[in-house]
Amino acid sequence: MIIQLKKDLHSSDLENLIGKISSFGYKITPVSTQVGDYLIGIGSKNIDIRKIGHLRGIQDIHMVSDDYKLVSKKWKVKPTVIELGDGIAIQDGEMAIIAGPCSIESEEQIINVIGHLKESGIKLMRGGVFKPRSSPYAFRGLGMEGLKLWYKLAKEAGIKIVTEVMQVSQIEEMHDYVDVFQVGARNTQNFNLLDELGKVDKAVMIKRGISGTIEELLQSAEYVFSGGNEKIILCERGIRTYERASRNTLDLNAIPILKAKSHLPVVVDPSHGIGIREYVPQMALSGVMSGADGIIYETHENPDKAYSDGQQTLNFEQSALLAEQIRKTFALRKTFPLL
Amino acid sequence: MIIQLKKDLHSSDLENLIGKISSFGYKITPVSTQVGDYLIGIGSKNIDIRKIGHLRGIQDIHMVSDDYKLVSKKWKVKPTVIELGDGIAIQDGEMAIIAGPCSIESEEQIINVIGHLKESGIKLMRGGVFKPRSSPYAFRGLGMEGLKLWYKLAKEAGIKIVTEVMQVSQIEEMHDYVDVFQVGARNTQNFNLLDELGKVDKAVMIKRGISGTIEELLQSAEYVFSGGNEKIILCERGIRTYERASRNTLDLNAIPILKAKSHLPVVVDPSHGIGIREYVPQMALSGVMSGADGIIYETHENPDKAYSDGQQTLNFEQSALLAEQIRKTFALRKTFPLL
Amino acid sequence: MIIQLKKDLHSSDLENLIGKISSFGYKITPVSTQVGDYLIGIGSKNIDIRKIGHLRGIQDIHMVSDDYKLVSKKWKVKPTVIELGDGIAIQDGEMAIIAGPCSIESEEQIINVIGHLKESGIKLMRGGVFKPRSSPYAFRGLGMEGLKLWYKLAKEAGIKIVTEVMQVSQIEEMHDYVDVFQVGARNTQNFNLLDELGKVDKAVMIKRGISGTIEELLQSAEYVFSGGNEKIILCERGIRTYERASRNTLDLNAIPILKAKSHLPVVVDPSHGIGIREYVPQMALSGVMSGADGIIYETHENPDKAYSDGQQTLNFEQSALLAEQIRKTFALRKTFPLL
Amino acid sequence: MIIQLKKDLHSSDLENLIGKISSFGYKITPVSTQVGDYLIGIGSKNIDIRKIGHLRGIQDIHMVSDDYKLVSKKWKVKPTVIELGDGIAIQDGEMAIIAGPCSIESEEQIINVIGHLKESGIKLMRGGVFKPRSSPYAFRGLGMEGLKLWYKLAKEAGIKIVTEVMQVSQIEEMHDYVDVFQVGARNTQNFNLLDELGKVDKAVMIKRGISGTIEELLQSAEYVFSGGNEKIILCERGIRTYERASRNTLDLNAIPILKAKSHLPVVVDPSHGIGIREYVPQMALSGVMSGADGIIYETHENPDKAYSDGQQTLNFEQSALLAEQIRKTFALRKTFPLL
Repeated sequence: MIIQLKKDLHSSDLENLIGKISSFGYKITPVSTQVGDYLIGIGSKNIDIRKIGHLRGIQDIHMVSDDYKLVSKKWKVKPTVIELGDGIAIQDGEMAIIAGPCSIESEEQIINVIGHLKESGIKLMRGGVFKPRSSPYAFRGLGMEGLKLWYKLAKEAGIKIVTEVMQVSQIEEMHDYVDVFQVGARNTQNFNLLDELGKVDKAVMIKRGISGTIEELLQSAEYVFSGGNEKIILCERGIRTYERASRNTLDLNAIPILKAKSHLPVVVDPSHGIGIREYVPQMALSGVMSGADGIIYETHENPDKAYSDGQQTLNFEQSALLAEQIRKTFALRKTFPLL
Repeated sequence: MIIQLKKDLHSSDLENLIGKISSFGYKITPVSTQVGDYLIGIGSKNIDIRKIGHLRGIQDIHMVSDDYKLVSKKWKVKPTVIELGDGIAIQDGEMAIIAGPCSIESEEQIINVIGHLKESGIKLMRGGVFKPRSSPYAFRGLGMEGLKLWYKLAKEAGIKIVTEVMQVSQIEEMHDYVDVFQVGARNTQNFNLLDELGKVDKAVMIKRGISGTIEELLQSAEYVFSGGNEKIILCERGIRTYERASRNTLDLNAIPILKAKSHLPVVVDPSHGIGIREYVPQMALSGVMSGADGIIYETHENPDKAYSDGQQTLNFEQSALLAEQIRKTFALRKTFPLL
Repeated sequence: MIIQLKKDLHSSDLENLIGKISSFGYKITPVSTQVGDYLIGIGSKNIDIRKIGHLRGIQDIHMVSDDYKLVSKKWKVKPTVIELGDGIAIQDGEMAIIAGPCSIESEEQIINVIGHLKESGIKLMRGGVFKPRSSPYAFRGLGMEGLKLWYKLAKEAGIKIVTEVMQVSQIEEMHDYVDVFQVGARNTQNFNLLDELGKVDKAVMIKRGISGTIEELLQSAEYVFSGGNEKIILCERGIRTYERASRNTLDLNAIPILKAKSHLPVVVDPSHGIGIREYVPQMALSGVMSGADGIIYETHENPDKAYSDGQQTLNFEQSALLAEQIRKTFALRKTFPLL
Repeated sequence: MIIQLKKDLHSSDLENLIGKISSFGYKITPVSTQVGDYLIGIGSKNIDIRKIGHLRGIQDIHMVSDDYKLVSKKWKVKPTVIELGDGIAIQDGEMAIIAGPCSIESEEQIINVIGHLKESGIKLMRGGVFKPRSSPYAFRGLGMEGLKLWYKLAKEAGIKIVTEVMQVSQIEEMHDYVDVFQVGARNTQNFNLLDELGKVDKAVMIKRGISGTIEELLQSAEYVFSGGNEKIILCERGIRTYERASRNTLDLNAIPILKAKSHLPVVVDPSHGIGIREYVPQMALSGVMSGADGIIYETHENPDKAYSDGQQTLNFEQSALLAEQIRKTFALRKTFPLL
């Protein structure tokens, strides 16, 4: 049960409200976000909603039977818009393009990528400064110094930054240099990290777990939302299956399902999804037709010299062409009544 | 190693040739299809190809290191065209639409579907008369009588038939009433069935196994080809993964990979792939953008009354709309240089 | 609903019975096996069983809510014993050991294996004469001639034969030379084959599908049973997962679950399960402790020279040692009250 | 390449050594643990080892081609013994039994469990005070207060504590109240957490990821080792597959493979592995036969009233019986030459 509270509710009214609803057998979790105040009630499903609905301070009340609540479309039909400032947003009905290298490598590399993005009309840049690596002996990223440099250059160019945060202790130091915090596939169920990102007033993009279910992705988003942050983007990036001809199995089935279940925007990462440069464009365009609100892919001036993920990275020429095709495909999709 | 033989080779020349190549340490399998004669050599990879290339009777010779040979693009770059007569074909560079019910149910149903297909300009009809069912107590299809009736009505309407053959003994009786034999996902590795379909001069559409790899699908196609039949269509229909929010996980990653590895046409089945009616159109259009040469989906006048698979079946209105969107999406794709 | 019929029911009584039960909204399938006669009713679950129970000709009646019926423990609590003659059986409470090569290769090989089995007190021999191979160019087995030779030698030695049947047309020719027909993992859902094996009065061992669920395995067994043959053995042989360190993932979780759900005996195949020779014994003994009624594994005089599966095949010394350890482990298990 | 350094190497000698080896094209990571000092070299595989082996300060040198190095059996054949004090250890050749509730719930519950463990001769107790839960609204554990209480009671009883740490910031506060830090399946690739646990002089038990490969588990262990902590235990706890008849698919294949690849002890968690109370004993005993060095399972005085995981938890009677059977099975296993 989700109870939307009226604005500026007095704390004694709130206590009173919690007490009364609890008395019907519900365990209540109060949630306050940038947007509103809510009570989440877990308990009996057979209550007569009218017994609660008339209580003072309640704006609206919704029964949501899913394990996730606040991220469900069952109570919030209107799609969530993620405003990033300067007129840049990620939202239903638009097509965000997010491109950039796997790892931030050097000033020169950043300048090159930004130049390419500006030429191609791309306003969101991805890149890693803290890199999760399965081997402890591999390159782990440039860290905060790289981030600060990147942020300065991106800001000058009017470009927004999407980058991975790997642990709670990084949130604070990264905060001022990040437009979208990315939670990587290995951290989708790092619940402490999600909790803490709930306390931040920056957008959070959560990647689906390496073998995460759609349900689990939504529950991870619920952590951030119930922590206080409604600015959440979901990202499909390929799941682990028995098939090894592709790096992962990009699961585009997830897109219409996520869009039907949740009011949050959904983006597709074809680079990690299929993991083979030659096939990234097809997967990106398929992603557009599957109903995604954005595409995030990897590009680098010289993919074969990239510090990481070169095999799935497009060069600038390929990237410019893909961005154009994404826009044309999306323009066609918008003319289709069914989607 | 694939050796293409000259036309009308004398049998003594052939024997001679096999003897000589065998002496280099190769195990030779001769293959004769509607299109040509080949020798497949399995053995050492380090031979100097010139030692064999000059032998009499050899038209061309190719080293193919994959486990599949004749279905590989490494020797046959030109895409295979599956001609079905009356100007109907399945091929690279075109977009085949194949629609129809899960099960053939009655004369009235067939007439209704054919009417819808004609109105929508769809020339290929799918339907099952022998149904593989996991429970022995479920409806198993109308059998040969249903097929004969269907064939008569489809022929009159100028529509081609795609239907599943479940066992060797059915091939002969079905033969005259079928345009494309479909091999179902549970039979992808029924090697006897594949062998026998190699002896038939009708097109064969092989569905990927329930948890089949891309490699295994190509090897299954190799069975049919090496049996003597080059008219093969590959079909992605979703794989089994841990995810249960969709019936199967339609694996569109397979499309660009299959197209790169093989000269055979590839079609996508979004109905079985995602298994949820509402999302079939998105998956179909994603399939088009992934590079498929055709889309096969389920439609029925009244999906909720269908004998089987109703939950993933479109009604005629939805089908007509989807066919139009498939064509528009394909028209856009054709303008894209990369795909 | 399973209705056990009285012996020697008059056909008019039977018709009468079917008519009456059908009138309650059930679709009835009559089943006759070596052991008894049954009616399987699919339909409403809310009927008062007493309305049917008193009808003439009915011995007993059971409601079974699973999709499989006759193989369920819910109606037949007593474990099924598979008698193979000469005092050899596969059954709950005993430990069958089935050993032999992947492929039957030659008279000498057969004699060697039989010699080893007799020395080790093993009375069941496995081996393939028709081999399912993913590549059409690989060794496909010695065929009927190999089988006849093998059968003659095994019979003389008092050893029973377990061998794979790949298609319907082989059943008849193989029938007299086989003690247990094996249905391979690629044929677990070859429903025509299962149907036909239902008409045979020989034991059938069904391997779990390559990515088959436990439920599907039981439904495949239901095909054989409802076809008329109660002599069924279930076999766990490893499933396909994302993990590649082992050939397959032997799923021992399936053993206690199958034993709880069905009255049929269950055997474990550690050779295909893990696929690595060094670890076959550990998996075999784990299989014993998991509650299996038998272990089937591969042995060959010289595994490195075996025509197929050498990497997972034990030599005779290893096999003799393993057989002894299996027996000791089983003897210990029998002393445990819980299992 | 792993270079074991001599004890008490002078820092200038060390620098000198690193310089020289780097000059052969290796990237060097120095590692210092409780046990020794090492240099890990990543680079060319074709170097003549004698060029390095004679350098001053080197005790021994090993080429290890795996992606993991220090946890590999290729350089350290002798199994690692995890000493926990008071004569309690987890090690190859012994059988550790670790039992306890999913969650620590109350003083009374702790006292009850400890009483049961003492009666059954079990010296290691598991339990969670910080619980990773997919829903933010579920019980998240008693936290530090619960841990302190538990530790006090366990210490008095001579019982060692195994409990999950979920994030870096908890390590320090938990440190003095924990005998074995457990890394949960959702944190197996939380590399920051692993890094930090490398700096701690307490044993760390790493659970295999929810869909983690064996290789990834070993690489996660490499993080802890290369961080400075050699006291690592590996734990198989079931993987995610398509099968839903069991909660997870306990992958016993992993045990002999891990034991062959690494010198670290391996334990099996049948409770999470199969997830169904009735079948936990069979899986536990199978785990013993698979070659495990320990079994960790859930027990509670009244499983049906447990705060979490009750469906897979044994009561004390079942637990006592299982502990006895584990010991008998292990005693038999020790008499087998092969294992």
